[in-house]
Amino acid sequence: MSTKAYAATSATTPVAPFSIERREPREKDVAIEISHCGVCHSDVHQVRNEWQNAIYPMVPGHEIVGKVTRVGAKVTKFKVGDTVGVGCLIESCRTCASCKEGLEQYCESGMVGTYNGYEKGSKTDIAFGGYSERIVVDEDFVLKVSSKLDPARVAPLLCAGITTWSPLRHWKVGKGQRVGIVGLGGLGHMGVKFAKALGAEVVVFTTSESKKKDALALGAHEVVLSKDDAQMSAQTGRFDFVLDTVSAPHDYNAILNVLKRDGALTLVGAPPTAAQIMGFALIMKRRSVGGSLIGGLKETQEMLDFCEKHEIMSDVEVINIAKVNESYERMLKGDVKYRFVIDIATLRS
Amino acid sequence: MSTKAYAATSATTPVAPFSIERREPREKDVAIEISHCGVCHSDVHQVRNEWQNAIYPMVPGHEIVGKVTRVGAKVTKFKVGDTVGVGCLIESCRTCASCKEGLEQYCESGMVGTYNGYEKGSKTDIAFGGYSERIVVDEDFVLKVSSKLDPARVAPLLCAGITTWSPLRHWKVGKGQRVGIVGLGGLGHMGVKFAKALGAEVVVFTTSESKKKDALALGAHEVVLSKDDAQMSAQTGRFDFVLDTVSAPHDYNAILNVLKRDGALTLVGAPPTAAQIMGFALIMKRRSVGGSLIGGLKETQEMLDFCEKHEIMSDVEVINIAKVNESYERMLKGDVKYRFVIDIATLRS
Repeated sequence: MSTKAYAATSATTPVAPFSIERREPREKDVAIEISHCGVCHSDVHQVRNEWQNAIYPMVPGHEIVGKVTRVGAKVTKFKVGDTVGVGCLIESCRTCASCKEGLEQYCESGMVGTYNGYEKGSKTDIAFGGYSERIVVDEDFVLKVSSKLDPARVAPLLCAGITTWSPLRHWKVGKGQRVGIVGLGGLGHMGVKFAKALGAEVVVFTTSESKKKDALALGAHEVVLSKDDAQMSAQTGRFDFVLDTVSAPHDYNAILNVLKRDGALTLVGAPPTAAQIMGFALIMKRRSVGGSLIGGLKETQEMLDFCEKHEIMSDVEVINIAKVNESYERMLKGDVKYRFVIDIATLRS
Repeated sequence: MSTKAYAATSATTPVAPFSIERREPREKDVAIEISHCGVCHSDVHQVRNEWQNAIYPMVPGHEIVGKVTRVGAKVTKFKVGDTVGVGCLIESCRTCASCKEGLEQYCESGMVGTYNGYEKGSKTDIAFGGYSERIVVDEDFVLKVSSKLDPARVAPLLCAGITTWSPLRHWKVGKGQRVGIVGLGGLGHMGVKFAKALGAEVVVFTTSESKKKDALALGAHEVVLSKDDAQMSAQTGRFDFVLDTVSAPHDYNAILNVLKRDGALTLVGAPPTAAQIMGFALIMKRRSVGGSLIGGLKETQEMLDFCEKHEIMSDVEVINIAKVNESYERMLKGDVKYRFVIDIATLRS
């Protein structure tokens, strides 16, 4: 199926109109007409080959929402017309311990990413992402999306949402806990919404005084300016859990210091340089610092179901696909509340 | 009670004979005639004021074993003649959450260290450690020691032992797990013994080819030379838990890389400089790095009881107290298998 898309063809050229082929649905495949695709910070890293593993042509996009248009003969979970989502991964080995536990993102053989990789079993067949009219994915890597929710606002749940949901659940965030969210961007704003809905007392750590009002509007109970030493000191030893969504290098020891005994700091933003961690900050309170990678299919579905129940969606700015390069520049400046989402209808017209 | 001791009187002079006063036992106190005191690496740091918090005169020593000679009127747990131990702490607030959980080492008000601090409630009454003939301690901070065990070999359990035991238990090390111990010194050799006795498959990581034979003799199933990239690569993703006992700066990312998904690295050695931790090493496998500080009274007693049952003791070199400064130099060169223990009888003669 000839399919309109936007692609990067090198690290130094803009994302531009491009044509790709999508396969005919195989017996377990679902063909999806994409309505919206979120713009993730990692799209920029990948397009510009900042992680040194780019495969061109590259059609970015792994926050995909659309409607089912065709299903293979053995598809049992979806039917034509269903609203569905596709996130950061479209396949995995399905046999390792992580896959069997529904944690396909940690597949021992390596998950198959939605873009910037090759289709399962192939060394040449490039996987193309959601900046495109349609996508064909095995049903086991497709998520059910409630038709009650705004699809534009659901799209970012497939990456920004699950990336924050998964660690909040894994580290058992809930009532009676004081939880910090570091950074208020695409990930951070979802972290605030989820942590609050899970019953925690939520405190946003930000470097920007201007984000204080927004954080409170999103549901945070308190905002701490992380560059203000006095404000940080006042938080010493008060947190059960902190989720750090910032991918720029910053002071991790000041954050560790706000954790109680046995408190955990979890990174979902990964700076390109090593984090400087003082051993004493860990040892003196048995604290830990960990990391978490997106989420598996099972927990992504749980998140989407939770979002339906609690009417939780991303705050987005919907754009014409022709504005995608401009959206990258604005995102890098932090000029978005809180996620750009491409209206894929603008690709068809 | 006038008491012979060895003390440091400045950061630049050797530890030397000194006389201190011990209080008369109060109603909850136990007076202990010390038979042995271990020499801990931290003794050197403290004596030389390398942690910038030294209080002189300083009588070091927090790996203390001896016999009860007197008990206060309200002592219920001990009687004259009992073999007992005193470890790294002699008091705490007793009212905070950590104290109530038996984790007095994390006391919110700060534990009272066995030396280089002040007795509880005092700002002038210096606490003197185990390089002395006797010590007087509240019974709640005294441990029962089996008279069946060699007291010289029990002494290091009170710090080196509990420092490794506590994290192995907290992170639930046991059967079916592959566990790494980084460094084979005073702490590391106890880590090997405990992890093995708890049923784990134990692998020692060392920079020193010469320690291979010793590690296997101590019970390790395997030894990996951590400076050999090929050997380290062969361990990728294979460990449930790694205990890092090394306090010199080293490559933590190479160690993180040997952990499975959800594996934990726990530091009990704290380098003076920041550990360089790559966020991706954590994120890609949901790994974590934490720290652990000695242990509480309850778990220390559990460890001592476990040691009695399994006949686990430290490997030691017993020395005359006159050799203590020399033992520091040898310890800094790694020239000890694996702990120096002072025969306190040599202080009395």
